[in-house]
Amino acid sequence: MKRIRLGMIGGGPGAMIGQVHRLAARMDGRFDLVGGVFSSDPDKGATFAQEIGSTAFASEAEMLHSGQIDAVAIVTPNHLHVPSARAALRAGIHVICDKPMGISVAECRALEADVAASGRVFVLTHNYTGYPMVRQARHMVRSGQIGTVQQVQVEYPQDWLARDAAGPRARQAAWRLDPARSGPGGALSDIGTHGHHLMRFITGLEITQLLAITARDVAQGGLDDSAQVTLRLDNRAMGALWCSQTAAGAENGLRIRIFGSDGALDWRQEDPDRLLWSDLSGPRRELTRGSPDLCDAATSATMLGRGHPEGFFAAFATIYRDAADEMLGLGPTLAPGVSDGTWGLRFVEACARSAQKGGTWVDI
Amino acid sequence: MKRIRLGMIGGGPGAMIGQVHRLAARMDGRFDLVGGVFSSDPDKGATFAQEIGSTAFASEAEMLHSGQIDAVAIVTPNHLHVPSARAALRAGIHVICDKPMGISVAECRALEADVAASGRVFVLTHNYTGYPMVRQARHMVRSGQIGTVQQVQVEYPQDWLARDAAGPRARQAAWRLDPARSGPGGALSDIGTHGHHLMRFITGLEITQLLAITARDVAQGGLDDSAQVTLRLDNRAMGALWCSQTAAGAENGLRIRIFGSDGALDWRQEDPDRLLWSDLSGPRRELTRGSPDLCDAATSATMLGRGHPEGFFAAFATIYRDAADEMLGLGPTLAPGVSDGTWGLRFVEACARSAQKGGTWVDI
Amino acid sequence: MKRIRLGMIGGGPGAMIGQVHRLAARMDGRFDLVGGVFSSDPDKGATFAQEIGSTAFASEAEMLHSGQIDAVAIVTPNHLHVPSARAALRAGIHVICDKPMGISVAECRALEADVAASGRVFVLTHNYTGYPMVRQARHMVRSGQIGTVQQVQVEYPQDWLARDAAGPRARQAAWRLDPARSGPGGALSDIGTHGHHLMRFITGLEITQLLAITARDVAQGGLDDSAQVTLRLDNRAMGALWCSQTAAGAENGLRIRIFGSDGALDWRQEDPDRLLWSDLSGPRRELTRGSPDLCDAATSATMLGRGHPEGFFAAFATIYRDAADEMLGLGPTLAPGVSDGTWGLRFVEACARSAQKGGTWVDI
Amino acid sequence: MKRIRLGMIGGGPGAMIGQVHRLAARMDGRFDLVGGVFSSDPDKGATFAQEIGSTAFASEAEMLHSGQIDAVAIVTPNHLHVPSARAALRAGIHVICDKPMGISVAECRALEADVAASGRVFVLTHNYTGYPMVRQARHMVRSGQIGTVQQVQVEYPQDWLARDAAGPRARQAAWRLDPARSGPGGALSDIGTHGHHLMRFITGLEITQLLAITARDVAQGGLDDSAQVTLRLDNRAMGALWCSQTAAGAENGLRIRIFGSDGALDWRQEDPDRLLWSDLSGPRRELTRGSPDLCDAATSATMLGRGHPEGFFAAFATIYRDAADEMLGLGPTLAPGVSDGTWGLRFVEACARSAQKGGTWVDI
Repeated sequence: MKRIRLGMIGGGPGAMIGQVHRLAARMDGRFDLVGGVFSSDPDKGATFAQEIGSTAFASEAEMLHSGQIDAVAIVTPNHLHVPSARAALRAGIHVICDKPMGISVAECRALEADVAASGRVFVLTHNYTGYPMVRQARHMVRSGQIGTVQQVQVEYPQDWLARDAAGPRARQAAWRLDPARSGPGGALSDIGTHGHHLMRFITGLEITQLLAITARDVAQGGLDDSAQVTLRLDNRAMGALWCSQTAAGAENGLRIRIFGSDGALDWRQEDPDRLLWSDLSGPRRELTRGSPDLCDAATSATMLGRGHPEGFFAAFATIYRDAADEMLGLGPTLAPGVSDGTWGLRFVEACARSAQKGGTWVDI
Repeated sequence: MKRIRLGMIGGGPGAMIGQVHRLAARMDGRFDLVGGVFSSDPDKGATFAQEIGSTAFASEAEMLHSGQIDAVAIVTPNHLHVPSARAALRAGIHVICDKPMGISVAECRALEADVAASGRVFVLTHNYTGYPMVRQARHMVRSGQIGTVQQVQVEYPQDWLARDAAGPRARQAAWRLDPARSGPGGALSDIGTHGHHLMRFITGLEITQLLAITARDVAQGGLDDSAQVTLRLDNRAMGALWCSQTAAGAENGLRIRIFGSDGALDWRQEDPDRLLWSDLSGPRRELTRGSPDLCDAATSATMLGRGHPEGFFAAFATIYRDAADEMLGLGPTLAPGVSDGTWGLRFVEACARSAQKGGTWVDI
Repeated sequence: MKRIRLGMIGGGPGAMIGQVHRLAARMDGRFDLVGGVFSSDPDKGATFAQEIGSTAFASEAEMLHSGQIDAVAIVTPNHLHVPSARAALRAGIHVICDKPMGISVAECRALEADVAASGRVFVLTHNYTGYPMVRQARHMVRSGQIGTVQQVQVEYPQDWLARDAAGPRARQAAWRLDPARSGPGGALSDIGTHGHHLMRFITGLEITQLLAITARDVAQGGLDDSAQVTLRLDNRAMGALWCSQTAAGAENGLRIRIFGSDGALDWRQEDPDRLLWSDLSGPRRELTRGSPDLCDAATSATMLGRGHPEGFFAAFATIYRDAADEMLGLGPTLAPGVSDGTWGLRFVEACARSAQKGGTWVDI
Repeated sequence: MKRIRLGMIGGGPGAMIGQVHRLAARMDGRFDLVGGVFSSDPDKGATFAQEIGSTAFASEAEMLHSGQIDAVAIVTPNHLHVPSARAALRAGIHVICDKPMGISVAECRALEADVAASGRVFVLTHNYTGYPMVRQARHMVRSGQIGTVQQVQVEYPQDWLARDAAGPRARQAAWRLDPARSGPGGALSDIGTHGHHLMRFITGLEITQLLAITARDVAQGGLDDSAQVTLRLDNRAMGALWCSQTAAGAENGLRIRIFGSDGALDWRQEDPDRLLWSDLSGPRRELTRGSPDLCDAATSATMLGRGHPEGFFAAFATIYRDAADEMLGLGPTLAPGVSDGTWGLRFVEACARSAQKGGTWVDI
């Protein structure tokens, strides 16, 4: 079995997302974590590498040109994604990059060009698309099983910013609300882009116009911590996307409901193995991961039998599996790519533009 | 026990809502249904009266001046509410009126004047406010238990229009989508006003500005069958209200979530005996109807012990109970009144105005 | 419309169940509550009658022979049911009797004979069978839609005895745990019989043998407050019935799951408008009250459209509707009758016998 | 970081559980899978090893004495567990063994002696005890937060045997229903032991007497496919344990409810990040994984923030983490051990004995 030598940028002490990427890579089983530049502080990076049984490189450049890695996982704050990714691609290294892809459409477009020029694989970890029932939803919508999409309701409430910003997650709150490091969106960048990509992934529809208003209930002076976005989609359907990091009681409440002329689908990230399907002609059905008669994309992303919750790690590992498949030349996959990342920034910038004007319609 | 002699206008053959009003009146136990003008066609009205063991009056005027009734329940299509209500009040008769109160703000204001001049009771059946846990929510928000309200999410999806408009509910679909009989809103008038009132009832906040877009997926050429409304509230909170009568799989999915600086509440009409309370300082709590430690308003609206679902009829009967209390001089109640009805039309007209302009901000 | 003159025995001050019966009778709309013997203390009865706008009779005998009533509702403690019912039947009066029917199989059999001899209607208010989705379940099982019944799981936990026995419900606790007034079962009589009847109503199966163990966690010295019963059914299926009035957190948790060779059904009293149907050949379906394609028995017991919770009162009113239909000669109904009541006591006596012997198998 | 060299016995082509063990080992990150005897057929084993990028040993003996492994994971059918485990221990190799531990109490006792004599670590993968909220439940019960345990309801329904026994899982069905390979229990061994251990793990209570009846609805002639067991616990509490592999619609419905004198807990494997806590003095609370204020055992078993479902793999990895900690001398853990395995077989044998006698009480 061909193996992929992986380096990591970021993901050092206290960074949950670095641990998630390492675990996802291990779960796929085809990656070897060779080492990383785990921290901007070389001493901290070295200590951390030792703790996790890995190796620290002195710098990104050294790692990228070491000849020791085939691919790199970028898990730094948003503003560092594109520069690292571009450097990697130019060194002939595949890239797995955390989301959002960057902090401006402009830099995303530059990255698109580099991906095209490099011929390397670029995968963006919009990890929720790794859930089998999300892939089932995509299949059902795209094969017409709910008819023409008429309305979309997307929501992603959390409450960590109201709960922990002054405490255990102060450091994360600081950079996520800082435009220099987070880009033009706060909650919009961090979780709004997940909701936006999920909608696109399932329906294949793009937003043509949107209108956003935002709040800064905790983040006074910083970026938005909540946003309400109204959507016009390119098939004339309408939609709404609400995200908030100050919604008391919400943990990771990503949910998408898609209403078509013949039926509807409802999926919730906190109960990911279930997809509710309402057809106008009969009772609601509860489709469950691992059941027979699901589509190939759902079945092939399934690691475990019915009724044993697979959860977040397995979905994330599926994105790594897709990345590995692409890197090993095993064909295209459903993994989000560089153009998805650009769409994400187009969404965030459009929302920011609309909100700054007091909530006007803007083209995306 | 003093009893109230009740007449009914509308509510004849096939009208579900007339049956609901009669049942609610019976459940309260202090009303005697004397008779009614159950249909615009006197013969049908007479036949129907006989079927239900009641008496038909030849005309509204005859009934209102018969000396046989103290109060009237108006359950006709929207455009007939205000004329009947004004005639009743001028005859010194109390009014219980179905929602929305009318078809224009102008006629609602005229009715307000008549209510004031008459000294009679006017109750508008925004029946969801009769649910005990809605009254509990009101108490909690207004007594500061979730802090300052920051965000409100209201939704009311149904699917009957997509499901039954061409079949069993064709007649209802016809008048509900006809501006002459329904007023400026379709789904907005029929169910949007319920969501709007529920938000006001619980939070005490008013909308200052709103922006609406609408769809006509089934109702081609008629009124809106879905609407997405963005809200700015008078305490600077933001909100969204979505209503739809073409949302496949939705039965009567009225839900309200209110997020404050300290906590949040979540209530769903399809599971009305439960109120979820999330406080930032601890785990989510599930408050249930009939439990000790609920507020007086919730407890006094409760007819049955914990765990036996009270449901829609009991909530509706609570509005009738309130109406009876007011008519018998037993003090003010939480029942919606005439100014609530005017606010409802202000909401509908503002939405219609906004939507006609392609979704612009309008003052309410 | 022919009307039925109703008297009531019991149901006076503080008796929730009397209020429920009165409400159910009013909801059906064909009963007139003429008066009652609401309390064993005539003064209290008279005061109470006045409070509720009714009339007090001096004694049961006077009421039964007054010529003023056609039917009587018996809502006294268990030991008084059969004597009152027999007296009523002998006076030619129809009987609606609360459950359990009595305190011994012997008196139940005597009552059976009186019912047969009288030609009057006898209805036992196992009210949960009035829920439309319970009737749908019965239809589906009996028409073979889940194949051969193989396993039945019935549970009915409550917690009021642990919560309120020393407080607000002390009086009810006292008689319910007293063998002289409650019969041989505590929780078994009060709620176990509901679970037992529900199983029989839906499946048509009878218990051939059972084995019971009981607990007296609160009711020290009194009757059982919890029981675990293992069942052998007459088609060789096996089952379990658990009831408890000390199960913290349980409100009225009646639930029945029926597993057949081809599929299964799952119904919960706290969410009564929903019936989950799992067929081995596909995904779980959620059948909802008011939907098209339900059986006639479910549809005709439905008062309200989909998505508006009907709840407990409506289900209870359906039993009254059935009773009225039978009294008015409108044909047989699904209402529980006198033989169901005898089966209930056979169940309770068998459980008590088994538990007394330390949990041995006994024939029912 | 010290690493553990792991060998595997069983878990070859088509064996889901082997894949789960390998994944759990990888997720912990301290195990290196050196190789295995993946199949009883050496050729198949070699091919399979190649497929997964591992190495095949020619025989168990060779592997155990190769000096290349520190620990072995045993994932064969039940009858092979004890012989392999004993051989490993005698070779000085730590053991991670799938459940149930064996096919008789006698062989389990022999294994207990070997564990004691060897000084090696023995961990039994009752994996559900790796879920953080199960550990939270254990903490709460054992620290008295629900008072004295009075009733326990355990259930574990599945439907795969009714659904897939004639198809995709025929091979698994064959050995699981064969006493020579499965031991005296069918569903009782496979899933009943999980429920039994979960009850013991959380409550610390042991069964003193039990009574079981079983069914063979699919498994005609073979072992039980469903069992209903009534329990007497050593603190005089009563309980029930129901397991079934023919319960239509059930996927992996393991659920435990524990009722105490002051409160109750409710946990479901299909929604594992949630623990419902009902205290008699207030409303139900929903404790969620990753929340502050959970016990250390729950928190330290948590890999991910609130609201991202961790699921089955993470729980399984926690058992591997515990095993690694024990092997590396990092102190005792909550991982199930050899005496738990013996208790499991005592449970199964007692059930089988009781059922054979037609359902009599037997000591465990």
